[in-house]
Amino acid sequence: MTDVAAFSFNKLVIFGVGLIGGSLARALRERGEADGACTVIGVGRSAASTGRAVELGVIDSSAALTDDAALREALAGADVVLLAAPVAQTQPLLERIAPFLGADTIVTDAGSTKSDVVAAARAALGARIGQFVPGHPIAGRESSGVEAALPDLYVGRNVVLCPLPENAPGTVERIAAMWRATGALVRDMAPEQHDRVFASVSHLPHVLSFALVEQILNSPDAALKFSFAAGGFRDFTRIAASSPEMWRDVCIANRVALLDELDAYSAVLARLRTAIEAADGAALEAVFARSRLARTEWQEQRAGGGAPGDASK
Amino acid sequence: MTDVAAFSFNKLVIFGVGLIGGSLARALRERGEADGACTVIGVGRSAASTGRAVELGVIDSSAALTDDAALREALAGADVVLLAAPVAQTQPLLERIAPFLGADTIVTDAGSTKSDVVAAARAALGARIGQFVPGHPIAGRESSGVEAALPDLYVGRNVVLCPLPENAPGTVERIAAMWRATGALVRDMAPEQHDRVFASVSHLPHVLSFALVEQILNSPDAALKFSFAAGGFRDFTRIAASSPEMWRDVCIANRVALLDELDAYSAVLARLRTAIEAADGAALEAVFARSRLARTEWQEQRAGGGAPGDASK
Repeated sequence: MTDVAAFSFNKLVIFGVGLIGGSLARALRERGEADGACTVIGVGRSAASTGRAVELGVIDSSAALTDDAALREALAGADVVLLAAPVAQTQPLLERIAPFLGADTIVTDAGSTKSDVVAAARAALGARIGQFVPGHPIAGRESSGVEAALPDLYVGRNVVLCPLPENAPGTVERIAAMWRATGALVRDMAPEQHDRVFASVSHLPHVLSFALVEQILNSPDAALKFSFAAGGFRDFTRIAASSPEMWRDVCIANRVALLDELDAYSAVLARLRTAIEAADGAALEAVFARSRLARTEWQEQRAGGGAPGDASK
Repeated sequence: MTDVAAFSFNKLVIFGVGLIGGSLARALRERGEADGACTVIGVGRSAASTGRAVELGVIDSSAALTDDAALREALAGADVVLLAAPVAQTQPLLERIAPFLGADTIVTDAGSTKSDVVAAARAALGARIGQFVPGHPIAGRESSGVEAALPDLYVGRNVVLCPLPENAPGTVERIAAMWRATGALVRDMAPEQHDRVFASVSHLPHVLSFALVEQILNSPDAALKFSFAAGGFRDFTRIAASSPEMWRDVCIANRVALLDELDAYSAVLARLRTAIEAADGAALEAVFARSRLARTEWQEQRAGGGAPGDASK
């Protein structure tokens, strides 16, 4: 765990102290309490929204986003600022922070999409864009809120960083070290690549799952169908219990990549439809067997290094 | 458990002693050993295929489907015959059995589709169709084979019966009593209704899940995508690890209902695509919120009477 020793900080400011921000704070504080002093400040829409995080000891103190003086004090001399709010709030948040942002402070985020976040950051930070390192910790979203925050949420999880041309190498490395200190595996990707990958393995499955429940609801015998739904339906639609607001925002923020994946998926469905209609058993079995093999191999590789308790994302 | 006392038999013959047939045998034998003598005979393609079931004590004896004398003896005086083989084998199996079938023997099945099974039974049994009661126990298929057979597999599970106009009431009631004796909840449906319901809540989700893995496999960055797939992908695609042969057969056997569901689903997807492209957050959130509510209510109702360990079906 030499990585764990590689990150130290004096002041971390987290905008949005929920599961993601709170878990980072708890992971770093557990080290900090060993290392010596380090301060974690949470910023929320109101004092109330961060009060619980202080009560739980997840953060040292809190500031209200609307309070200029408190925000200035919170950001003064901060090493790192994490934005852990909905991606749609990235630009207004950065515009709000910019006036109080020190030249040595590094800002990063935890958004599920990256191309839109980069555009928002460029618009808000302008010439200071080099201080912003886009990031995405791939961690659970099943339960949410600071009560669900865990010091080991990121152990063995992937954290994607999307370094910008304007980022100094040391700037990116500092954020990478912060995440490695939580036990996460840091991986770099271009924002467009990130958005394509997560449109495929996360955003599209959520849309498909919501769509199945919607289809059943629209059918005349919905109640009967639900009454016979069993384990296959249960797992297929578990992610349809995810936050409508979050997924609405993700679908819109990542719509370019998501539409590409949706169209590619519809093409596969059309192929399967043709095979079903033609009762082409060989064509169906070929696709099903290929999928089963790939899914089984994925599970096996994951069981090796993966986190079985990994939640929906 | 007055239901449990309501069924007794002298001889049960099971064609295909795997998870489904084996679990019925184990459930009834546990009662039989209390009640007194009752014989369970397993029939397989060969003696070897049923030998393991005899070793495990799931059945009393076995017969090879190819052996006329053994088959005649097995079926002589049988109370009930269960077909627990792939649905595609229903007609050849019934044609093979018909010459040896006593007038008082009731035949039922465990197939995942019903309209095709009824057609096959009518073709094979002709005027004796009244002796056939179509059935479908909704039970796990995750693990398979007689080793996976459990005496309590059906406790609290639904078993659908699709009575035919030619069935005498007492004939249907006898099969219903058999399943109730295993702890199952017996529900009647018309074959077409059964096929529509399961096309929607089981067959379509399997196709959609196989299709997602197929789509990723077809993409240029498949390995990268799989490497970032997390919990949402895991649950959405768990059923893509199901048997390609079984699902090939189900898709073809139930293709009429499945194509209807697939088209209705594609229409929902097209609506969502339009909303995503137009960045219509209100439309997306409305669908997602409705789906989340329905999925959450379904889970809660199920937690009341349902089987949490329920497997893919």
